[in-house]
Amino acid sequence: MRAVIMHAPGDVRVEERQAPAIVEPTDAIIRLAAACICGSDLWPYRGLDPIHGPTPMGHEYVGVVEEIGPAVNDIKVGDFVVGSFFASDSTCEICQAGYQSRCVHAVPMGMIGTQAERLRVPLADGTLVPTGAQPTAEQIPSLLAASDVLGTGWFAAVAAEAGPGKTVAVVGDGAVGLLGILAARQLGAERIIAMSRHASRQKLALEFGATDIVTERGDDGVAKIKELTGGLGAHSVIEAVGTREAMMQAIRATRPGGHVGYVGVPHGVDLPGEELFFSGVHLHGGPAPVRQYLPELISLIMNGEIDPGRVFDLTLPLDQAADGYRAMDERRAIKVLLTP
Amino acid sequence: MRAVIMHAPGDVRVEERQAPAIVEPTDAIIRLAAACICGSDLWPYRGLDPIHGPTPMGHEYVGVVEEIGPAVNDIKVGDFVVGSFFASDSTCEICQAGYQSRCVHAVPMGMIGTQAERLRVPLADGTLVPTGAQPTAEQIPSLLAASDVLGTGWFAAVAAEAGPGKTVAVVGDGAVGLLGILAARQLGAERIIAMSRHASRQKLALEFGATDIVTERGDDGVAKIKELTGGLGAHSVIEAVGTREAMMQAIRATRPGGHVGYVGVPHGVDLPGEELFFSGVHLHGGPAPVRQYLPELISLIMNGEIDPGRVFDLTLPLDQAADGYRAMDERRAIKVLLTP
Repeated sequence: MRAVIMHAPGDVRVEERQAPAIVEPTDAIIRLAAACICGSDLWPYRGLDPIHGPTPMGHEYVGVVEEIGPAVNDIKVGDFVVGSFFASDSTCEICQAGYQSRCVHAVPMGMIGTQAERLRVPLADGTLVPTGAQPTAEQIPSLLAASDVLGTGWFAAVAAEAGPGKTVAVVGDGAVGLLGILAARQLGAERIIAMSRHASRQKLALEFGATDIVTERGDDGVAKIKELTGGLGAHSVIEAVGTREAMMQAIRATRPGGHVGYVGVPHGVDLPGEELFFSGVHLHGGPAPVRQYLPELISLIMNGEIDPGRVFDLTLPLDQAADGYRAMDERRAIKVLLTP
Repeated sequence: MRAVIMHAPGDVRVEERQAPAIVEPTDAIIRLAAACICGSDLWPYRGLDPIHGPTPMGHEYVGVVEEIGPAVNDIKVGDFVVGSFFASDSTCEICQAGYQSRCVHAVPMGMIGTQAERLRVPLADGTLVPTGAQPTAEQIPSLLAASDVLGTGWFAAVAAEAGPGKTVAVVGDGAVGLLGILAARQLGAERIIAMSRHASRQKLALEFGATDIVTERGDDGVAKIKELTGGLGAHSVIEAVGTREAMMQAIRATRPGGHVGYVGVPHGVDLPGEELFFSGVHLHGGPAPVRQYLPELISLIMNGEIDPGRVFDLTLPLDQAADGYRAMDERRAIKVLLTP
């Protein structure tokens, strides 16, 4: 089968790779309906994360189950399924507490690589959620978004305690930040401030539910958020970048006692303990337990209540994955969908 | 009046100082029934926080109201009162959200200095809580503990979400850590692991409600906590020290999705963003909003349900404050009460 392999920073190729097979009795094999490129795939693409030899890429996926192992009970051949970027048993104490991304048996799907025609999914019963009806072509991008960027934005909004009466600020206007806006709106936030200086992203932010746009960054952005919130700062701030500047912007834009939900994978972030202490904020984040939210997100999508797939502004055949990486690297595309 | 003044690291003196007077119409003057030395007073004493000239010391206080300003309505002359280490109006949006230590009009009592015979308390209506009946001599140390160390330990336990079914680990066996144990017990925690290697502190920890003692520190301490929790880590961890080692011990001892409540004032703490991210813990702390808890804590003390004053293991007349600082610095005393 064909699959995306990164050989070195900037060097992404689509190559023939052995088709996956059942390894563990709890595995399933799915045929991908769509895959995509994640903002986090840009870290190695830009040489900011190391690559050790040719590496299969991708961790987001939706598709149809083609084969199941003998110990798979809840997932059937023919099911259209969505999974998250960590396979999880969904039965351990950590999963049961809602942190499936830290399941004691978690398998990172990025180690397997989902930008491919077919995929082995470990712990299929715990990991995969069937959509029930087969989705329409229009619903597939939204279901694919649920696999990571929507689920991650949703977790960030939950971690930031977005909800009725709350003012939410969002640092980062990539797919996760934009879907954090959608999540905050769904969770009932009163006011949602998108921090963005890109016209097309501002437009989508407003369509997803942002009430205000702030174009300033860093300390100026913080000052603007304070100005909009009676000098106090936002109740809830979503951080969806992963740089130190973005984290400090998020912490400083939050009022004492408020909540920062951070989901940008940190690169070179050292948090000053004393400033964090005196900020008095709550800090919660990490790899989003997307699996926790999948049933609800799938239901919202299949019922047509949300349309997160709109973050995909470029669709390419899998064979042109390299063009997709370039488009995201150059910020010409928010998020690229790949059709196998 | 006599008051404690720090002139330089290690140089604490009791000197004559002008008696306080009403400055703002919202002020009250109280005659202290007791004052005390805080673990955080040791930072400048040890030269780890700068001192700029002679500095009045202390931020914990209980006493009897002697005089009130014309705008004080809820506090009366003769009331026995407890306040926290931040004066607060208790009416602003931040106070109403429960973060009185970050009141928009907050005044740090440490800037005024409470190790003295008399004290001016700003924002008296918002800051002071009357005990109702006059306390007995035995209750005064416990009420004084409520002013900071109990309130701070309580906040740490709340921030760590200690409660029924939870395993709570406590890093730090000073007064705050010990009272964090008492708080976790009051909040219904199932198992409370005290991390301490001092026999007298271990004894008090057990009396306050600890179910287990771990003497290991750092990575060994983390390994021990994991061993006691099925490899997962504690649900809730209280950090009551303020060093980087203690913070990392707390974060690493917490299970994914668990809660760290940190109240040790950080000194030289830089938190590694990537490790914090992948830990998946909730982090909340800062200067404790003790005022929020005072009515409940006073009630528990006046009803004889808790006896937090037992953390005071040395009582000295105010004039011997220097001996008290030495005893705490040398860890001969957990906490020193000063009688004016």
